[in-house]
Amino acid sequence: MGLERSWVAGANVAETDFPLNNLPCGVFSTSGDEPRCGVAIGEMILDVAGLEAAGILKVAEDPVLDVPFWNDFMDLGQGAWSGFRAALAELLREGSDHRAQVEPFLIRQQEARLHLPFLVSEFTDFYASRHHAFNVGTMFRGPENALPPNWLHIPIGYNGRASSVVVSGTEVRRPWGQIRPPGAEAPVFAPSRRFDIELEMGAVVGQASRQGYPVTVAEADAMIFGYVLLNDWSARDIQAWEYQPLGPFQSKATATTISPWIVMRAALEQFRVATPARERPLLPYLHEPGPMLYDIALEVGLTPAGGRETVIARTNYREMYYSAAQQLAHHTSSGCAMNVGDLLGSGTISGPAKDSRGSLLELSWGGKEPLAVEGGTRTFIEDGDRLTLRGHAQGKGYRIGFGPCAGTILPALADPWQREL
Amino acid sequence: MGLERSWVAGANVAETDFPLNNLPCGVFSTSGDEPRCGVAIGEMILDVAGLEAAGILKVAEDPVLDVPFWNDFMDLGQGAWSGFRAALAELLREGSDHRAQVEPFLIRQQEARLHLPFLVSEFTDFYASRHHAFNVGTMFRGPENALPPNWLHIPIGYNGRASSVVVSGTEVRRPWGQIRPPGAEAPVFAPSRRFDIELEMGAVVGQASRQGYPVTVAEADAMIFGYVLLNDWSARDIQAWEYQPLGPFQSKATATTISPWIVMRAALEQFRVATPARERPLLPYLHEPGPMLYDIALEVGLTPAGGRETVIARTNYREMYYSAAQQLAHHTSSGCAMNVGDLLGSGTISGPAKDSRGSLLELSWGGKEPLAVEGGTRTFIEDGDRLTLRGHAQGKGYRIGFGPCAGTILPALADPWQREL
Repeated sequence: MGLERSWVAGANVAETDFPLNNLPCGVFSTSGDEPRCGVAIGEMILDVAGLEAAGILKVAEDPVLDVPFWNDFMDLGQGAWSGFRAALAELLREGSDHRAQVEPFLIRQQEARLHLPFLVSEFTDFYASRHHAFNVGTMFRGPENALPPNWLHIPIGYNGRASSVVVSGTEVRRPWGQIRPPGAEAPVFAPSRRFDIELEMGAVVGQASRQGYPVTVAEADAMIFGYVLLNDWSARDIQAWEYQPLGPFQSKATATTISPWIVMRAALEQFRVATPARERPLLPYLHEPGPMLYDIALEVGLTPAGGRETVIARTNYREMYYSAAQQLAHHTSSGCAMNVGDLLGSGTISGPAKDSRGSLLELSWGGKEPLAVEGGTRTFIEDGDRLTLRGHAQGKGYRIGFGPCAGTILPALADPWQREL
Repeated sequence: MGLERSWVAGANVAETDFPLNNLPCGVFSTSGDEPRCGVAIGEMILDVAGLEAAGILKVAEDPVLDVPFWNDFMDLGQGAWSGFRAALAELLREGSDHRAQVEPFLIRQQEARLHLPFLVSEFTDFYASRHHAFNVGTMFRGPENALPPNWLHIPIGYNGRASSVVVSGTEVRRPWGQIRPPGAEAPVFAPSRRFDIELEMGAVVGQASRQGYPVTVAEADAMIFGYVLLNDWSARDIQAWEYQPLGPFQSKATATTISPWIVMRAALEQFRVATPARERPLLPYLHEPGPMLYDIALEVGLTPAGGRETVIARTNYREMYYSAAQQLAHHTSSGCAMNVGDLLGSGTISGPAKDSRGSLLELSWGGKEPLAVEGGTRTFIEDGDRLTLRGHAQGKGYRIGFGPCAGTILPALADPWQREL
């Protein structure tokens, strides 16, 4: 299948993230308006809340789009999701009879502000890229003990902090935290000096599961509404001191940035790829009935304050050892209930090559091998740096993109308990 | 201060959990009614939603109590909390002029069903009892390495799963999970055989903090609306295999039971006690400006199916090394935003004596020393067992109680992916 042509400005260009094939879901506002649901198309945002209010688009008995989140829409389920895509495709296709009716509901992306696209119920982060786990394990425990014994059997995950999730463009302040300086016995409370990114994909859960009942991998795949880019900002010095025995906590709680657009699973169907060959057989409950990863090219750019961007890593979502569907099935294995709006981070995505690693920790090998960037070098993030994740699936003559997932680092507070007046 | 006498039946008895001094917050329904906010007093529940609707009680401009959660009320803040207590005390005190007006809004506790008292935003669990950490550490790593090096510096915590939280009385089904049998190299997927309790207190966050800004211990204490009893059900065999390197995940996600009544912090003021002497100096951000623990006697009862209860542990909340206020302050140290309805588990509370340990893991020393119970012995929980936590602060002639925090264990599903018809 090739590009589906649309009458909307900029939608038929090969470089746009948002052709008619995509139709990703976001929340936007313009000056003076309340945030509401919108869909990206070419250079524009389609005000689907407005279309619904005008009776041009009907998705449910009662309106669900005139709110600053997609949760109510997601809750309607698969039938509503595909009906919505079909209706939009008909309204927006080249030659559509509805153009005159729909055109007043287009807003230029440049004139809109983007908000978090959904209410994050709970956030879970995984550790599921083979290369990332091996790299980090090697640095911490040596290559022989790099992979924990459970790693090839369990999609290892931990609960993160939903309140940390912010939309692309939100500034991120360097955190303070407990850090034990090298060689010291006691910790200090200080700003993090090893503040880092983690390049991830996020899966957005669009259907709930019932407490006490695990779901299969196929059911889990069907529960996923769509995907976002995700940057799990990580303070490595806080993490190293706090993480044993119960896992990362404050090192991961400062912020988690996601891209503003949820790309619906349906838009990614043609880009499905299988997980790599299993090094050990998986237990049956983790068997995949079909390809559950996606071929999504990913890159990370670093832009120093006032400088130009250097792309510091290029990789692909297909590098994962476990798919989001496997992670979600495992997440319910003890009977844990999942809810609409739950967000699952894939875990840092690293490829085999040195420049395909999804964190500065790996790219600079624990800070030992500084990385060349425009106008200098980096081990970890410096104040004023802007980090931008980008991703897209490449079709024939078109791409399915996510929009940038970016954040600029502000210096740590001089006194963390000061209050702004 | 002694017992505050009330005209309500059963409120002046020394053994009641709910004298006028207490006034804890719950959510209840009677047959045919919608769940709404209520306050326990003696043998009764005061329908405060009804009082508010009738104009006898006013807490805010708009009604906030005719909903099945206390979150909106908590959000009003400290002034509303104390105003509410003062108003109820006046309505319910012995000799009150309002008795005739209020009496129609009393429902017998026996005729009501209790629900989860608040919407749990996020759930965090800690690991902050010195004896518990030492016992568990000794079993896993030997007495020399029992306490991790960070333990005396950080109130160690990890994010739990909010969707696991259920109210007392909810049946809990034994989970399936990945378990590695002793000596085996590969795991199996099987029902947990080492299903356990964790005796904890839960602190309910009633005021939000702002992303990017840590709070002090004093501010944290003021953000806590109240406390509940909390049982963090734990599958030890799943936990042992999954928890490294990122902490417990599915082993703790089956269910977390809390008592139905939130005891407001104000009701516990007279029972404040200091944390024990510090074995190592704490960093200044964790210093307590006053006593932040509470003298709350706790016990655990185990009742086999059709049998009688054995009390298997007795301890006290004052055994904690870290207070909830310290835990909450630490929780914000990286700039993590806290929200109304966040729940903080204290961590398992164990005392120094063998029968003061808050988990079967410790009581049976990893299953090696079976425990005598009515009609048999126990290492871990058996199907049909009912586990009940109880707790109260003892005043002169009265007590501030929480009501039972109980759950009965159902056998594991025969096929975890079966669906009920």
